[in-house]
Amino acid sequence: MGDDSGEYRRDQHYITTRITADGRDGYPVAAGRYRLVAARACPWANRAVIVRRLLGLEDALSLGLCGPTHDERSWTFDLDPGGRDPVLGIERLKDAYEARFPGYPRGITVPAIVDVPSGHVVTNDFAQITLDLSTEWTAFHRDGAPDLYPERLRDEIDAINEKVFKDVNNGVYRAGFASSQEAYEAAYRRLFARLDELSHHLAGQRYLVGDTITEADVRLFTTLVRFDAVYHGHFKCNRHKLSELPVLWAYARDLFQTPGFGDTVDFAQIKEHYYMVHTTINPTRIVPVGPDLYGWTSPHGREALGGRPFGDGTPPGPVRPGEEVPVEHTPLPG
Amino acid sequence: MGDDSGEYRRDQHYITTRITADGRDGYPVAAGRYRLVAARACPWANRAVIVRRLLGLEDALSLGLCGPTHDERSWTFDLDPGGRDPVLGIERLKDAYEARFPGYPRGITVPAIVDVPSGHVVTNDFAQITLDLSTEWTAFHRDGAPDLYPERLRDEIDAINEKVFKDVNNGVYRAGFASSQEAYEAAYRRLFARLDELSHHLAGQRYLVGDTITEADVRLFTTLVRFDAVYHGHFKCNRHKLSELPVLWAYARDLFQTPGFGDTVDFAQIKEHYYMVHTTINPTRIVPVGPDLYGWTSPHGREALGGRPFGDGTPPGPVRPGEEVPVEHTPLPG
Repeated sequence: MGDDSGEYRRDQHYITTRITADGRDGYPVAAGRYRLVAARACPWANRAVIVRRLLGLEDALSLGLCGPTHDERSWTFDLDPGGRDPVLGIERLKDAYEARFPGYPRGITVPAIVDVPSGHVVTNDFAQITLDLSTEWTAFHRDGAPDLYPERLRDEIDAINEKVFKDVNNGVYRAGFASSQEAYEAAYRRLFARLDELSHHLAGQRYLVGDTITEADVRLFTTLVRFDAVYHGHFKCNRHKLSELPVLWAYARDLFQTPGFGDTVDFAQIKEHYYMVHTTINPTRIVPVGPDLYGWTSPHGREALGGRPFGDGTPPGPVRPGEEVPVEHTPLPG
Repeated sequence: MGDDSGEYRRDQHYITTRITADGRDGYPVAAGRYRLVAARACPWANRAVIVRRLLGLEDALSLGLCGPTHDERSWTFDLDPGGRDPVLGIERLKDAYEARFPGYPRGITVPAIVDVPSGHVVTNDFAQITLDLSTEWTAFHRDGAPDLYPERLRDEIDAINEKVFKDVNNGVYRAGFASSQEAYEAAYRRLFARLDELSHHLAGQRYLVGDTITEADVRLFTTLVRFDAVYHGHFKCNRHKLSELPVLWAYARDLFQTPGFGDTVDFAQIKEHYYMVHTTINPTRIVPVGPDLYGWTSPHGREALGGRPFGDGTPPGPVRPGEEVPVEHTPLPG
């Protein structure tokens, strides 16, 4: 995870098997066959939970949720009755990895998609998972599903995603997990320089690319929504709170208040995860009570910029029963 | 420092010898005899540095400054040439404590006042030190020195000081050094309840007691000025930043911009101290780059509430040469 410079380096070797419409990797898209395993805490998994909901894939692709904390080696299904995922029948996500790859040596990460009949993990390649939900699972999209990865905008979306990944999504981890002052400061500077650039970009347009919500917004959102709760204090990304950056704060609130975004966010699990799992930076495991979340539901005024959130589509309906975030973990009206 | 409940308890047994006008404890007030030993980092010492400057005691009572970090047992004069206080000739403040009390078993704390001829510490009773500067050192006050502890307001000042000490000055430490979730949450709740009460109180009046700056303002200020830099993140006092509490933020800026307050504050040393010394809560010893300090010098608008900062007196003149906070450690114009 680190090197002599004290820099944090994320292991970016994921299981690259893909679930595709043509099934070329042996895993064809099919309704009811796969289970998306996520955790409310995790920003990478949050992407997949949002996209699944925006696209209306709940019937086709079920959702298993690990609890916010985990041991050294695996996320666990400790929130489920008996501590066991009711569909996969396993207690630890590791079991699905081991089922396919005995002795799997890398991190047990969420999101992961598991093939229910075999119990094998198919993929944990988070960046590809959401793109495939948009482009390969089209047969099961709901009526009115938005196009989150429109062909004509893909180059632009890919380009912005790359910058956002390096400096923001992963940038906060590079700041928080740096083991030298120099590496931390370099990550901090890159992060806030990029946030300033994004603020400038978003001052005049409602969404990152085009005039509708795309994959690029999903990816930026899952980091922004965690910013004040965990990255600002725990990861020392503290030049400003998100709530002190007017454009990004309004942008994030706009998305938060859009069906499919804020209703997937569990602030209590987010804080519990970061503060309890990273004992190298929070050895007491004490979880902050703050920040106050009131502002997330306040008016954002971004409608004035125009934009068509769902393009020619429609917003998703209510959250599927059983998948709601507990009311006490969210500032959204219950 | 803690107990079974995980509560942080400050050892409040200080050396209670007093330096008085009548010298009843063997240490009469005298010009040039004593040295105030402080550290820019420490809020308790900051009080004494502010009061000394407001009262114009620089000629009568010299100032020695320890560096921001220290080892288990003592603050050290590591900022001085050769790592030695030029007046006391010692490297560690502990030496002055040991000179008077061999084997001194308690914490070596700042502020401390040392009797220069004998090299003996006289007192480290921070709460009494500032009151004595106001009431016992009057023969050496500058012309125009304010009355920071007016007789007719002492009961009111004492009462507010007690609440502010318990819930705010020491309250942030009770939050930050709690070793159980319950103890932390109790301290957090008391802290913010008190800050809300103080906000309410200060919404309609410029200063805490009466219409002039008093000891009560000095004591609240030294905690507020550290709030966003260290208490918000490091001590998890994160319901809001000070800069998100409009009344207290304007009140703190008003004082910060008053000669004798902000010009004693060294944000770099404050951050370095807290983040590098408290390895039980910040084992990486990485010091945050933020927060942005720009706002401290912005207009506060509190003049509209009236008030006479120095009463019938006048503001202190410029900071004594050699005692300036480095320009790169402060947002004040150089």
